[in-house]
Amino acid sequence: MNMKRTEISELGEFGLIEHLAKKITINSPHTLIGIGDDAAVLDARGKKILVSTDLLVEGVHFDLTYTPLKHLGYKAAVVNFSDMAAMNVLPVQITVSIAISSRFSLEAVDAFYEGILLACGRYNVDLVGGDTTSSTSGMMISVTVIGYAEEADIVYRSGAKEDDLVCVSGDLGAAYAGLLLLEREKTVFEAHPEIQPDLDGHDYVLERQLKPEARTDVVLVLKEKGIKPTSMMDISDGLASEILHICKESKVGALLYPEKIPVDPQAAGLADTFKMTPLTLALNGGEDYELLFTISQKDYEIVKDIEGISIIGHICDEASGVHLVSSDSSLLPITAQGWDSFK
Amino acid sequence: MNMKRTEISELGEFGLIEHLAKKITINSPHTLIGIGDDAAVLDARGKKILVSTDLLVEGVHFDLTYTPLKHLGYKAAVVNFSDMAAMNVLPVQITVSIAISSRFSLEAVDAFYEGILLACGRYNVDLVGGDTTSSTSGMMISVTVIGYAEEADIVYRSGAKEDDLVCVSGDLGAAYAGLLLLEREKTVFEAHPEIQPDLDGHDYVLERQLKPEARTDVVLVLKEKGIKPTSMMDISDGLASEILHICKESKVGALLYPEKIPVDPQAAGLADTFKMTPLTLALNGGEDYELLFTISQKDYEIVKDIEGISIIGHICDEASGVHLVSSDSSLLPITAQGWDSFK
Repeated sequence: MNMKRTEISELGEFGLIEHLAKKITINSPHTLIGIGDDAAVLDARGKKILVSTDLLVEGVHFDLTYTPLKHLGYKAAVVNFSDMAAMNVLPVQITVSIAISSRFSLEAVDAFYEGILLACGRYNVDLVGGDTTSSTSGMMISVTVIGYAEEADIVYRSGAKEDDLVCVSGDLGAAYAGLLLLEREKTVFEAHPEIQPDLDGHDYVLERQLKPEARTDVVLVLKEKGIKPTSMMDISDGLASEILHICKESKVGALLYPEKIPVDPQAAGLADTFKMTPLTLALNGGEDYELLFTISQKDYEIVKDIEGISIIGHICDEASGVHLVSSDSSLLPITAQGWDSFK
Repeated sequence: MNMKRTEISELGEFGLIEHLAKKITINSPHTLIGIGDDAAVLDARGKKILVSTDLLVEGVHFDLTYTPLKHLGYKAAVVNFSDMAAMNVLPVQITVSIAISSRFSLEAVDAFYEGILLACGRYNVDLVGGDTTSSTSGMMISVTVIGYAEEADIVYRSGAKEDDLVCVSGDLGAAYAGLLLLEREKTVFEAHPEIQPDLDGHDYVLERQLKPEARTDVVLVLKEKGIKPTSMMDISDGLASEILHICKESKVGALLYPEKIPVDPQAAGLADTFKMTPLTLALNGGEDYELLFTISQKDYEIVKDIEGISIIGHICDEASGVHLVSSDSSLLPITAQGWDSFK
């Protein structure tokens, strides 16, 4: 562990920017000028531009007592990449702004940007701008992501049609199980600092919470197979919240089959510990950053054979509402219990 | 004064976004889809894209004890528009993210967005996205601004050449004088809450601090006169800091004439009160959001007649450094004493 501590005030804001800029390379033909002037200069190369932005606040979105700064940087970038995947688009550029208090050393800021740049490298994204400032209390991170696409390839929330199939990538519930586990160990540690955290055997759920990935690979596979989803979102606030968004924007209803919902087995195994059902973890947990999308019935034969895609239900008319079909065929209304920072 | 108080928690994040989205209209042909999906969809229409972002933190960049939220919204938008003007480009879109604690009511958030939308209306800018979240302590604002230009029209910091003339728009020093005045009255008020603030006769410096404007009009006038600056920046951290940036990026030196620097008379009149010289207010004050730019000698005849543009010096070789030429022809080195949130 590197114990050196350099104060940010030794460098000042411009020194810090210069220090960070040295580590940044520009790779995309969409990037003409990155960091260094009053604005970055980008080139859409004839495509449409997609822009999304996220704000992450210490104590609300992340807890530095159990989140390493490198992981935090990685996650801050990836959750924004996921917003591009949600539009059926690959991320190309990001800007990253951070506010940090004087308790952060240069080494801490470096660890954060190491995570950002690791994510950028893995997803072929250029870091093209940002802002760094001091904060009077906690850390705050603002990321804006930019991608490019032909208009015909963009997928909105509003395109789901009656009889479309509802699909989800990967597995659900693990990120939230990981969070509950970390919160439990934090509580134990605060009461009994001598007790070592008990996190053994929970690698998958912890990694899903601390180091999620954006499913840009799913975007590429669907494209390769010639499939354009009729609607899509990424699952950041929980499956229940997201299917309700799609149904509302598309003016449709949906029927989901609980036994088809891909709950991660490790998360399911932990559900009891947290007095929840595995299904609740998947429906209301959030932060899995999997893709929820609808496809036309005609694409069923292709999609059913794609590994890691589950078909979990179908779209119905708006008046029928949004329900789970339980094993005795009774209908349970789906309500949003997803995470809301204001509630 | 509207004393109604609606808690944000009554609406939740999605309710708040819906509430805000109702007030937003989209006007630019560069905007295809604004708020409502995972990303906005924009169209460069064959031009290059310029992107810049700013982070504003309560207690660091603004003080809510004397900054009305509507003014804060206006300023948060305008300081970003100014980053586009600094590139010789007009702002076209912004995204606005805010983190607010539970002490903010819906009415307070509305006042903030009223300011944002007022600025958007005046500058023909579309609000196309953002994020809203709770915060555990202070308020934080992150704005990303987007503009479009032909590559040949973009002006960088790095283009100043030897013998170019150094120009500045408008007047300098007032915004900082306004800040010092507000800080003084705050201190008085904290010690003696019964004393009314003494701000009479200082309208101009207060307005420059609380409600600055971006000099997009200067960008338009220069274009109309057929002049492309060789380098440009906006003055956010003080003239001294900005001329040093231009000289560093352009690998040149500069000579500035103090008597040519357009210090605002009201600010100059207040300088004594704050134990500063008028020149110091202009050099190190910041937040005036005027444009500092260099032009080729050949454009002198045109620029000298443009109202509100002062020619304050010229560019020399890098080895000669960056100096003020005092009345006895001696040279005073210019050093950056501009504002740095980390110092």
